[in-house]
Amino acid sequence: MLRTHTCGELKMAHQGLDVKLSGWVQRSRDMGGLTFIDLRDRYGITQLVFNMEVNGTLCMEARKLGREFVISVNGKVAERSNKNPKMPTGDVEILVDNFTVLNISKTPPFTIEDNTDGGEELRMKYRYLDLRRNANKKNLELRHKMAIETRNYLSSLHFMEIETPYLIKSTPEGARDFVVPSRMNPGQFYALPQSPQTFKQLLMVAGFDRYFQIVHCFRDEDLRADRQPEFTQIDCEMAFVTQEDILNTFEGLAKHLFMSVLKMKMDEFPRMSYAQAMDLYGSDKPDIRFGMTFTEINELVKGKNFKVFDEAELVVGINAAGCSEYSRKQLDELTDFVKRPQVGASGLVYIRHGADGSVKSSVDKFYSQDDLAAILEKFGSKPGDLVLLLAGKREKTQTALGTLRLEMGKRMNLTTPGDFKPLWVIDFPLLEWDDETRRFYAKHHPFTSPAPEDIPLLDTDPGQVRANAYDLVINGVEIGGGSIRIHNKELQKKMFTVLGFSDEEAADQFGFLMNAFEYGAPPHGGVAFGFDRWCTIFGGGESIRDFMAFPKNNSGRDVMIDSPSAIKFEQLKELNLKIGL
Amino acid sequence: MLRTHTCGELKMAHQGLDVKLSGWVQRSRDMGGLTFIDLRDRYGITQLVFNMEVNGTLCMEARKLGREFVISVNGKVAERSNKNPKMPTGDVEILVDNFTVLNISKTPPFTIEDNTDGGEELRMKYRYLDLRRNANKKNLELRHKMAIETRNYLSSLHFMEIETPYLIKSTPEGARDFVVPSRMNPGQFYALPQSPQTFKQLLMVAGFDRYFQIVHCFRDEDLRADRQPEFTQIDCEMAFVTQEDILNTFEGLAKHLFMSVLKMKMDEFPRMSYAQAMDLYGSDKPDIRFGMTFTEINELVKGKNFKVFDEAELVVGINAAGCSEYSRKQLDELTDFVKRPQVGASGLVYIRHGADGSVKSSVDKFYSQDDLAAILEKFGSKPGDLVLLLAGKREKTQTALGTLRLEMGKRMNLTTPGDFKPLWVIDFPLLEWDDETRRFYAKHHPFTSPAPEDIPLLDTDPGQVRANAYDLVINGVEIGGGSIRIHNKELQKKMFTVLGFSDEEAADQFGFLMNAFEYGAPPHGGVAFGFDRWCTIFGGGESIRDFMAFPKNNSGRDVMIDSPSAIKFEQLKELNLKIGL
Repeated sequence: MLRTHTCGELKMAHQGLDVKLSGWVQRSRDMGGLTFIDLRDRYGITQLVFNMEVNGTLCMEARKLGREFVISVNGKVAERSNKNPKMPTGDVEILVDNFTVLNISKTPPFTIEDNTDGGEELRMKYRYLDLRRNANKKNLELRHKMAIETRNYLSSLHFMEIETPYLIKSTPEGARDFVVPSRMNPGQFYALPQSPQTFKQLLMVAGFDRYFQIVHCFRDEDLRADRQPEFTQIDCEMAFVTQEDILNTFEGLAKHLFMSVLKMKMDEFPRMSYAQAMDLYGSDKPDIRFGMTFTEINELVKGKNFKVFDEAELVVGINAAGCSEYSRKQLDELTDFVKRPQVGASGLVYIRHGADGSVKSSVDKFYSQDDLAAILEKFGSKPGDLVLLLAGKREKTQTALGTLRLEMGKRMNLTTPGDFKPLWVIDFPLLEWDDETRRFYAKHHPFTSPAPEDIPLLDTDPGQVRANAYDLVINGVEIGGGSIRIHNKELQKKMFTVLGFSDEEAADQFGFLMNAFEYGAPPHGGVAFGFDRWCTIFGGGESIRDFMAFPKNNSGRDVMIDSPSAIKFEQLKELNLKIGL
Repeated sequence: MLRTHTCGELKMAHQGLDVKLSGWVQRSRDMGGLTFIDLRDRYGITQLVFNMEVNGTLCMEARKLGREFVISVNGKVAERSNKNPKMPTGDVEILVDNFTVLNISKTPPFTIEDNTDGGEELRMKYRYLDLRRNANKKNLELRHKMAIETRNYLSSLHFMEIETPYLIKSTPEGARDFVVPSRMNPGQFYALPQSPQTFKQLLMVAGFDRYFQIVHCFRDEDLRADRQPEFTQIDCEMAFVTQEDILNTFEGLAKHLFMSVLKMKMDEFPRMSYAQAMDLYGSDKPDIRFGMTFTEINELVKGKNFKVFDEAELVVGINAAGCSEYSRKQLDELTDFVKRPQVGASGLVYIRHGADGSVKSSVDKFYSQDDLAAILEKFGSKPGDLVLLLAGKREKTQTALGTLRLEMGKRMNLTTPGDFKPLWVIDFPLLEWDDETRRFYAKHHPFTSPAPEDIPLLDTDPGQVRANAYDLVINGVEIGGGSIRIHNKELQKKMFTVLGFSDEEAADQFGFLMNAFEYGAPPHGGVAFGFDRWCTIFGGGESIRDFMAFPKNNSGRDVMIDSPSAIKFEQLKELNLKIGL
């Protein structure tokens, strides 16, 4: 080894010891007769000292070392005269006897500091330098810890990690596949998996009743803010279980990760139906770190000649405690906020509940003071509060108000970093109607089992069928979801029919799975967690990119290696492919 | 849970307990008034009993259950009258109170038994049934155990598992890449990694001085016997280390796997130079479970008018102990064996050392009894032995004799199942000359560091340069290999030049790595193990396919899901691609 110790471990107990360290020059300071160098490696920083009087030549050599030079030093551990209690190694320094330059460095294009001066694009291009920064290093350490704790926990419960293939078959249902041309089978393509869904179900048919895998998945989607073309899932499946067993098992995993990674002991996770989540939070991934839940007031506002409310399917609002003094400008901002196309409300109605008990609203024209008082009472509003109301089609209005609620939560500072509020959302609808294509889509995926008591509705009112499906939500972020699967060929066929597949299409794409169901498929179900997102939430980050070693940018490019890129004509020729239409 | 216990855990201690089991009907036997069913799950087999006298209806129902039906039973654990000591659950049986059919099964296309009647193709098509067989289940269990032990061991040594991307850049050096067309960047392609080599080196530049990853790799090669288009590596890299550190660290990993998976305590692994391995075993992955090493006899056979030997660069042989009585037919077989194109020898010379001390050879015409006696002495041959000689160009002859040695080892039964003889092969040549393309190729890969003392030879005699490279070999199988890497931009550039890259090509393909070397790249090196192969060796298997859940066949096809397959025209259009030239 080119070191006897790391730069993070030397303490007073090592005083007097001859050591060898290797690392990067973080910074260097000349103080008269002394030169100090902070030597950095993955484990920490240790101060090196060169004394001009003791060894002038060495000291002069040390002064030539630039930022990010890689050096190896021999020296003796000594007590510092000027200790730094903020550093784990701050009690000691190394009196250097000699050193070797292992590699030089050009001046990095940005500073390797917590608050770097490098913009995102530059840091992505030099990702190997960006990763030297403490924050990124910690993120990847967290990720490693999450992965190994997940594996050991599931392994201890007799889950087996089984690798499923990455070169599989294209199934146009769902998101767009990345495809891989096959040279040996000209004109044919593999697809990269959007998830190992069908394979894990086949493993259940094969009898491996507890499977998991931490696995890459691929989706060729137009990249929104926090999407990546490849991402990582904790993919799990169990046989001979009910939904209750799955929720308990993976609540166990989540609690284990909270404890082992964050040292937090969590209570039982609450469960909330999809309907309740929509009615109270306007979201199927409610952030329950704060209240401000919805109050529906249809029966209080109809028939008072306010057309907007009269025509609305739903009039619903939130009570923002202590916000009655919001200025005209602030209220206009909120109105603009809800009218943005992403939110889509047509307007915002407010009722100020003044600290002095006065009541003032933007609909005073239509509602008497008594009417308004009744509304405020229904909200449980207190003097000093502000009630915000939206109206319109039921689901759209709920969703818009959900967005407004989160915005208010932010403005009112209702969340505390380090606070975690997980919950299960259950009883999802099985299907989602799409107005544009005029067909149903699977809310989770086509393999999700309907709730047994709702199966007859598949023929009469498919939109009302509930699924045996569930999501794990933490702080308003969907960490994962899953379902009990269909394990019966006839039901699976019916499901494909409801989804608009012809029998041929279903057989062509998923025949292997339906055939498998004919050979003794056990009842089974599972869950998949977005590992990148889970790490991001636990690490208190904003973007999953910060928790991936080598993420791609919004155009799906890796700007460091400059990929994707053109390939040689010979490669195309071997693949029997031509560019252009 | 649809069970209280698994089918592998009930013992006498559970006698009298009411239990619920779920699983598959392995077989069923009617014995007069009793019906016995073997119920199977992942954990074992438990015998169910139905008594016609006690409950005739239930017993009649049970007799309708076919092979591989999935059932759930309630019953009481009872002591068997006729115990089966071969089964872990053989002391007990379940007196069934009632059962539910969870799913029916068609008759499987082959028997779910250790010795199945299904051919390979059929089993691959129904892989989910094949995986129900004990042997396959055990293989995947072993694989899971190997993976988790590897992760925990390396983790305990502060290695971090870091996921590198699967969508990277095509680099035509090495094997053929699988490519992935980019929809968002028309005409451009990602490539699937042949290994995360450059990324792990960048992680070293980034300061993560101990990295590993169990990771899929992809090579679009024409598939030979035991190759798969995607396979799994244990990929590792360390910084601030010498070759010695790497060998010790990963010998530690190997010993840990031997101990934790096979319960075998291993001695220190021997090390052998590439030159020695070729000279003694005719292979860079010698099987040292048996001796029969090579003896070179150039000086004993030249100048006796036997043209074949006179013109040969090398005359070399092995002494097959106790084989002097090989028949004419057997010797002809061996001659045919070495003359096959895969072996490529032009003929085989033998010397029988008769049990009575007589000496008889196929070259008696050219060599006196004294000559032959001298040869036998050099071989240390004993009466009853058979000496087999090959002659020709040095390396080709060594390789051919190496193949013959392995064949003789097999015929002579010199290996014992369960015997493991690992070793490190070191001091590989850096480069390999290819006569056809008239250029050097990297023996390992272009990032391998030359031995420092040999660097001057790069200019004068590149073929003589030794690499800081090493392979781990177990029982004649290369389990993994690695090297100390180049960490200096100039040396890396020179290496690319030696390999025939123009400066532009090198910059285009590997510019990002060479740039990274300019910003403080530490000395580093690593190793990658073929995980599938390692599992196969440990599991005593023949083919890596048996240790993969869903392998592909020799045409790179997954016959179960029928992939690769045609994709829709719309998909091609979106990708701006056309099939055909």
